[in-house]
Amino acid sequence: MATQGQVITCKAAVAWEPNKPLVIEDVQVAPPQAGEVRIRILFTALCHTDAYTWSGKDPEGLFPCILGHEAAGIVESVGEGVTEVQPGDHVIPCYQAECRECKFCKSGKTNLCGKVRSATGVGVMLSDRKSRFSINGKPIYHFMGTSTFSQYTVVHDVSVAKIDPKAPLEKVCLLGCGVPTGLGAVWNTAKVESGSIVAIFGLGTVGLAVAEGAKTAGASRIIGIDIDSKKFDTAKKFGVTEFVNPKDHEKPIQQVIVDLTDGGVDYSFECIGNVSVMRAALECCHKGWGTSVIVGVAASGQEISTRPFQLVTGRVWKGTAFGGFKSRSQVPWLVEKYLKKEIKVDEYITHNLTLGEINEAFHLMHEGGCLRCVLKVHE
Amino acid sequence: MATQGQVITCKAAVAWEPNKPLVIEDVQVAPPQAGEVRIRILFTALCHTDAYTWSGKDPEGLFPCILGHEAAGIVESVGEGVTEVQPGDHVIPCYQAECRECKFCKSGKTNLCGKVRSATGVGVMLSDRKSRFSINGKPIYHFMGTSTFSQYTVVHDVSVAKIDPKAPLEKVCLLGCGVPTGLGAVWNTAKVESGSIVAIFGLGTVGLAVAEGAKTAGASRIIGIDIDSKKFDTAKKFGVTEFVNPKDHEKPIQQVIVDLTDGGVDYSFECIGNVSVMRAALECCHKGWGTSVIVGVAASGQEISTRPFQLVTGRVWKGTAFGGFKSRSQVPWLVEKYLKKEIKVDEYITHNLTLGEINEAFHLMHEGGCLRCVLKVHE
Ligand SMILES: NC(=O)c1ccc[n+]([C@@H]2O[C@H](COP(=O)([O-])OP(=O)(O)OC[C@H]3O[C@@H](n4cnc5c(N)ncnc54)[C@H](O)[C@@H]3O)[C@@H](O)[C@H]2O)c1
Ligand SMILES: NC(=O)c1ccc[n+]([C@@H]2O[C@H](COP(=O)([O-])OP(=O)(O)OC[C@H]3O[C@@H](n4cnc5c(N)ncnc54)[C@H](O)[C@@H]3O)[C@@H](O)[C@H]2O)c1
Ligand SMILES: [Zn+2]
Ligand SMILES: [Zn+2]
Ligand SMILES: [Zn+2]
Ligand SMILES: [Zn+2]
Repeated sequence: MATQGQVITCKAAVAWEPNKPLVIEDVQVAPPQAGEVRIRILFTALCHTDAYTWSGKDPEGLFPCILGHEAAGIVESVGEGVTEVQPGDHVIPCYQAECRECKFCKSGKTNLCGKVRSATGVGVMLSDRKSRFSINGKPIYHFMGTSTFSQYTVVHDVSVAKIDPKAPLEKVCLLGCGVPTGLGAVWNTAKVESGSIVAIFGLGTVGLAVAEGAKTAGASRIIGIDIDSKKFDTAKKFGVTEFVNPKDHEKPIQQVIVDLTDGGVDYSFECIGNVSVMRAALECCHKGWGTSVIVGVAASGQEISTRPFQLVTGRVWKGTAFGGFKSRSQVPWLVEKYLKKEIKVDEYITHNLTLGEINEAFHLMHEGGCLRCVLKVHE
Repeated sequence: MATQGQVITCKAAVAWEPNKPLVIEDVQVAPPQAGEVRIRILFTALCHTDAYTWSGKDPEGLFPCILGHEAAGIVESVGEGVTEVQPGDHVIPCYQAECRECKFCKSGKTNLCGKVRSATGVGVMLSDRKSRFSINGKPIYHFMGTSTFSQYTVVHDVSVAKIDPKAPLEKVCLLGCGVPTGLGAVWNTAKVESGSIVAIFGLGTVGLAVAEGAKTAGASRIIGIDIDSKKFDTAKKFGVTEFVNPKDHEKPIQQVIVDLTDGGVDYSFECIGNVSVMRAALECCHKGWGTSVIVGVAASGQEISTRPFQLVTGRVWKGTAFGGFKSRSQVPWLVEKYLKKEIKVDEYITHNLTLGEINEAFHLMHEGGCLRCVLKVHE
């Protein structure tokens, strides 16, 4: 490869400051060091964590940075010692790493790998604790170990899932975050059984993926709850069987759901990021066994609460990150399921734009009609 | 039996008013109606729920009433349709019923039976929603469906566990509440595996039973936390391997435990009833998999809280009632385990008094040296 070992100058959307429009800049991307992979990003979607950090509300957000974590691309070059991928491989960068060696990976109990977190949490690479991005010598921070709002990015090898090259990258980029999060919340975290009654709070991409997961798990009733009644038509296609808009009721929404279900649901999922809805989601669960999974990410500093009696009488409160999927092992499996038409992906894509239109894409996120907006990263 | 079908007049400790000494009275105990069992109580212990309701802090407490729910006795007579026990059977009254027919019992997911709860929650019997206790015609409320601070009590047949008559009733009365709660929290609710690191907050009877349960489950480290350092000597005998007194540390106790365990414990148990300790117990759990079980009962109206991030990063928050044991099915099995010396019971009994000394027994509960005080109910 002509570019291998060279600094690549390419376009990237840089967040210079919180809450200021991203700027498309010429960015220098250093070659991958040992254990690193440089990826030519072809398509990236936007997710709420990007918007949250961009907004400045994330106290751990570092600027200037290159956001983005739901994407697909092709390996351009690899650093020393990288054996599992090589130039030309089709890949999905994974913000949840999977090293297969750390205490977490070896536990068999979680997908939260600890290997590179100390670096990715502060916007740098592990080996030298420096960034691979710069503009005229000024470093630009990485984000979530992925930084996919760039034509090229450098990630740790433990953060790359190699996928079937037959998969359309403009679609499967979604398998980098939102869709697996929803499916996995059902399959891995809650382990919903056939015949279960399920409540889903929030019918965005994540909530709809929960609905799809619940449907394939054989749930008998899938109750979708959203303050935007326009969500119901789409939601039906993903498996939601009943719709409740909290605004249509005087009673607290947990009471509405308990009444609707003769005592409460077997499983509930919070897919919004609102701490009072998290409480409602727990409290609408059936006494004795109802399990509530927190999927939404709340703003920093916010707290959940409930009476301990809710738990003493058998409800279980859990959460999920990336749906509990082990990224490098299971993202390729999700791609296969998509190719076999066993899971939806295309249906979540409501908008297609280019990297140059990224600020417009961020605006679209706040519109009810937008699920996922996919950006073409190279013209 | 001479007394069968007759009203029995016997001694009982009556709580006439919140927070006023109990009074030993001559109480009339009506014969059991259909589906009811009258039990001659031989021994009863005191538990915190008795003290809590007696204190007047329980908003659902009803007065006058006969408290008590950790006891053993012999069936005196049975009402119509009662087939599973007969006069002379040795039994333990169970505040958690088990009907084997309701939605809860049939779920296979919980021990919380729903059959008689609407009555036991308001101090009466299900069939006629009346009390079987009276003094000169004035009804006295039942408590928790058991009311064992009486020489005779009437309970629903779904609330009676028939046990091996070889078992010493002055010991196995403890299998009516505290000891099973601790053991079951480990075996049924948390399902602690061999090699696990366990933290126990509060080393009273319930916490010590958790320690014993964890030891038999093969836990590698059992960390006992109590503000009373005198608890450690006893605790060692129940399996606690390390002791931490929060008062010896500047740092929040969750941080102390996380530091001690290279990231947190696999399982924690709150056995106090203090909502801030419940939070600490969750937050000292290991990221990715740590599970915290609330066993202690908090005062009415109090709430637990934490940042949802604690759950999103893999911790699980649960609770337990009667340790998840199905009362009628499993209390007899616990009695067998005791007879085979597989579980301790005698070791929890620090004091022996008589029913007439019950007010002294309540005072003893607040002394550090007291685990369980067993009252002889008949002279
Ligand atoms: N845990 C993880 O690993 C993970 C991964 C990806 C996304 N997330 C989080 O999941 C959440 C959902 O993501 P998304 O992309 O689906 O978001 P989205 O904004 O597309 O969907 C949220 C939905 O919730 C509805 N809503 C808002 N307030 C509500 C309320 N009070 N009651 C009922 N409905 C309400 C909105 O109308 C919308 O339909 C976000 O918080 C995101 O950060 C978590
Ligand atoms: N969930 C159930 O089914 C169930 C059943 C029985 C009892 N309980 C509850 O379990 C709890 C424990 O019962 P018990 O009989 O063992 O009580 P106990 O009073 O004998 O023991 C409590 C222990 O906690 C310690 N403690 C108090 N505050 C503390 C703090 N801040 N930090 C650390 N330690 C502290 C005390 O020193 C004492 O050793 C009670 O709340 C009781 O109501 C629950
Ligand atoms: Zn995301
Ligand atoms: Zn790892
Ligand atoms: Zn008790
Ligand atoms: Zn039942």
